Amino acid sequence: VIVFLNGRFVLEPEAVVSVFDRGFLYGDGLFETVRVHLGRPFRWPQHVERLQRGAEFLGIQLPGSPAELGRGAAGLIARNRMPEALLRVQLSRGVGPRGYSPRGADAPTLVMTLHPAPADSAAGLPRWTLSTASLRLPVGDALAMHKTCSKLPQILARAEADARGADEALLLNAAGELAEAAGSNLFWISAGRICTPPLSAGILPGITRAVVLELCTGFRWPVLEVIAGPGALRQAEAVFLTLSSWGIVEAVSLDGQPLRTSPQVARLRDAYQALMERECAGAS
Amino acid sequence: VIVFLNGRFVLEPEAVVSVFDRGFLYGDGLFETVRVHLGRPFRWPQHVERLQRGAEFLGIQLPGSPAELGRGAAGLIARNRMPEALLRVQLSRGVGPRGYSPRGADAPTLVMTLHPAPADSAAGLPRWTLSTASLRLPVGDALAMHKTCSKLPQILARAEADARGADEALLLNAAGELAEAAGSNLFWISAGRICTPPLSAGILPGITRAVVLELCTGFRWPVLEVIAGPGALRQAEAVFLTLSSWGIVEAVSLDGQPLRTSPQVARLRDAYQALMERECAGAS
Repeated sequence: VIVFLNGRFVLEPEAVVSVFDRGFLYGDGLFETVRVHLGRPFRWPQHVERLQRGAEFLGIQLPGSPAELGRGAAGLIARNRMPEALLRVQLSRGVGPRGYSPRGADAPTLVMTLHPAPADSAAGLPRWTLSTASLRLPVGDALAMHKTCSKLPQILARAEADARGADEALLLNAAGELAEAAGSNLFWISAGRICTPPLSAGILPGITRAVVLELCTGFRWPVLEVIAGPGALRQAEAVFLTLSSWGIVEAVSLDGQPLRTSPQVARLRDAYQALMERECAGAS
Repeated sequence: VIVFLNGRFVLEPEAVVSVFDRGFLYGDGLFETVRVHLGRPFRWPQHVERLQRGAEFLGIQLPGSPAELGRGAAGLIARNRMPEALLRVQLSRGVGPRGYSPRGADAPTLVMTLHPAPADSAAGLPRWTLSTASLRLPVGDALAMHKTCSKLPQILARAEADARGADEALLLNAAGELAEAAGSNLFWISAGRICTPPLSAGILPGITRAVVLELCTGFRWPVLEVIAGPGALRQAEAVFLTLSSWGIVEAVSLDGQPLRTSPQVARLRDAYQALMERECAGAS
């Protein structure tokens, strides 16, 4: 496998960073996971835009323009001959002096790697089981808006779900409100309306979440951003998750109790896949 | 400079980790910073014990016994000929599959590096200015008990303090209570009593914090773990910070307003330095 590392294409054994890189020392960085379909990264401009926003927030200089980043991604996909893949883009603050202060770390590290696309993601609606994490997300956390590399809370939540035999972890915020899942955004259908927590619940503004909101608008399906407790999921007509790697995934149980399911989720997924097909097959 | 990397001593250019190391991808690891004096790491058993507790909590296998870790540290100090230094020990979960689940990452990375000791730390009481971070720490966060590599909240707080010209960031928790500073624990003196937030405020159980509590007990100075707001610092007879790298540091201002200072802090620091001297000069 070939890796993009600071403007160069290198083989995996050379794809290394210094042990003094602040990404390694402190999770001081940002990343994006992008679905590559037909050789093209889906919703690339939105991912780059989020990365840029995060970099500005953290005070990290993104090396190169969005166009250069795009050329690097295209080169990586071509060199690896992986037209169906996941593209991971990581920006870290690079090497700097010891200590939390970011002063003196002025040479950021930019890495792009390709990973196999989830095998089932092309084969109909994936179905996952959920378990509620004991860890709660902070409310009103400015960092929640950015896809940072300080991910231990999400890792712990996911490890707990693993231990319970669940596929994904549901996260509530400190107020006990529905927030998101460890690696995905949360939706549910209630009285025919598509519901999702507002960004103010302390969640990541997911790219796939935004695409789903777009699709619902196109369908003239009513969408509501709702602050609700976990009981809303038990009463829902269906619950689903959105993430760039898998797209739309139906949640079929929560903490071992089955959730209701609805053909509307498969319809939304079909629309999502069709949109991805159309955009990735279209002119670059 | 020579670095300890997974059981080997390597030169800095070879001190690298894979871009697929979860420490780099997600801040999925732990670290310790230990003061080395007279060639010996001060309070080494306590640092190793905290690292072991964290590793158990995160489900990372510490490679090697505490004794082997100690031999590695001693070898590193000797090879670098740095009897006065800071020793940084980092354990990351190592390379694993993409995604938050820690499953399949079974070869942790252990790195030890030496850094110059703060130049002033031997030369009398250091004095720092504080500014209050806008970011709040979560209350009752199980992760706060461990020194993890997911440190962006602390980095942001510290960057904000930098921008305001302050030396360190004071962090309150979500309940508005005094918690800790970005890279140090917090103490203040009120009516002759040494006060510090309880661990339940959501803070790191600092090794230097524990030594200070020990010293106060030895002096028969009354110590109180207190839940208090930031007003307590303004009324205090003195405010000080504890951290392994610098030891005891007096805080001289908060958000631009001077704080009161007391000779008791210098006395405590003298006792701390004497203890370090005694223990590091003693039999190994």
